[in-house]
Amino acid sequence: MSSPEIDALTQALARLPGLGPRSARRAVLHLLQRRDTALTPLLRALESVNANMVHCSVCGNVDTVDPCGVCSDPRRDARALCVVEDVADLWALDKSRLFPGRFHVLGGRLSALDGVRPEDLSIAALIQRVAAGGIDEVVLAMNATLEGQTTAHYIAERLESYPIRLTQLAHGVPVGGELDYLDEGTLAQALRARRPIG
Amino acid sequence: MSSPEIDALTQALARLPGLGPRSARRAVLHLLQRRDTALTPLLRALESVNANMVHCSVCGNVDTVDPCGVCSDPRRDARALCVVEDVADLWALDKSRLFPGRFHVLGGRLSALDGVRPEDLSIAALIQRVAAGGIDEVVLAMNATLEGQTTAHYIAERLESYPIRLTQLAHGVPVGGELDYLDEGTLAQALRARRPIG
Ligand SMILES: [Zn+2]
Ligand SMILES: [Zn+2]
Repeated sequence: MSSPEIDALTQALARLPGLGPRSARRAVLHLLQRRDTALTPLLRALESVNANMVHCSVCGNVDTVDPCGVCSDPRRDARALCVVEDVADLWALDKSRLFPGRFHVLGGRLSALDGVRPEDLSIAALIQRVAAGGIDEVVLAMNATLEGQTTAHYIAERLESYPIRLTQLAHGVPVGGELDYLDEGTLAQALRARRPIG
Repeated sequence: MSSPEIDALTQALARLPGLGPRSARRAVLHLLQRRDTALTPLLRALESVNANMVHCSVCGNVDTVDPCGVCSDPRRDARALCVVEDVADLWALDKSRLFPGRFHVLGGRLSALDGVRPEDLSIAALIQRVAAGGIDEVVLAMNATLEGQTTAHYIAERLESYPIRLTQLAHGVPVGGELDYLDEGTLAQALRARRPIG
């Protein structure tokens, strides 16, 4: 017996990961009953992010500044570059504070099934960054899936002529596992035991 | 390494019931990566609800129209009135479709500890609705807590001079239980076995 507006809000929240229809309904009630302390702050935060969000022109991260906070952080080691499939992976690695360098977001993985080709990912931009020099090590941190590993091998081939150390995450990453679902301990182990490619 | 805007959004989402800091971060990523299909719809839905939300002047429900959808639904039995502590309880009972009548939201429960007195709840408005006539049965659907039952007894006394059938939910409701956390089966049982008061 809710209004269309309230139903639309419930449905929009129910589509978030971690919330189902039942908890979305509870969340809407929470918002309606706490207009000043919950609904308005969430609305303002969404407006602000929506108005300011931008893809970093250097690494592909999503942030509200360009270059993003990671790329413009002077404490980070510009000589080490970690290549990830998507922004979620960047955030997972960044949050773990295990990797002191910068990142490059591919925007996906090669997939014959989904018709994702090299030119659909930001691989050319990655090669440009490496070709520009100043990078000593590139860590390929793809997911330990078939498509992730295919992508890693493709990139490894494309980068083999450059004078860099090319490594990939050790297979502490469970086979079939998605990077951004891992606990930090597993991430740490995989990063510590990273090994040269080819 | 997130921007203040993104942090604010993460924190606003983390305060929703059912989402913690970790799932809020995942939800933010989901929103950032699906601007058109997730972020914008959620933002529009929140704006719309924020702009239109209103407390029903009849029953105290929260909706985007006044009187609310429940009060203005002609298929509902206007002779049966279910009194609940808060809007969450109304929604739980309404969603179960077990009660064919209308509602009255008290806006809390009597509490010596929290200093909640009868005049802090919409008890006077309830008595006015009953005094206006046309109501055959009032179901007191307070939580099965000490304060909920104290509130029910207080209201029962205030309503005892009116020619109505006064009932309360059967104690299928677990003692100490909060109404809006119950499954529908328990709610159904409690409502089916409701019994006269006093
Ligand atoms: Zn960046
Ligand atoms: Zn109403």
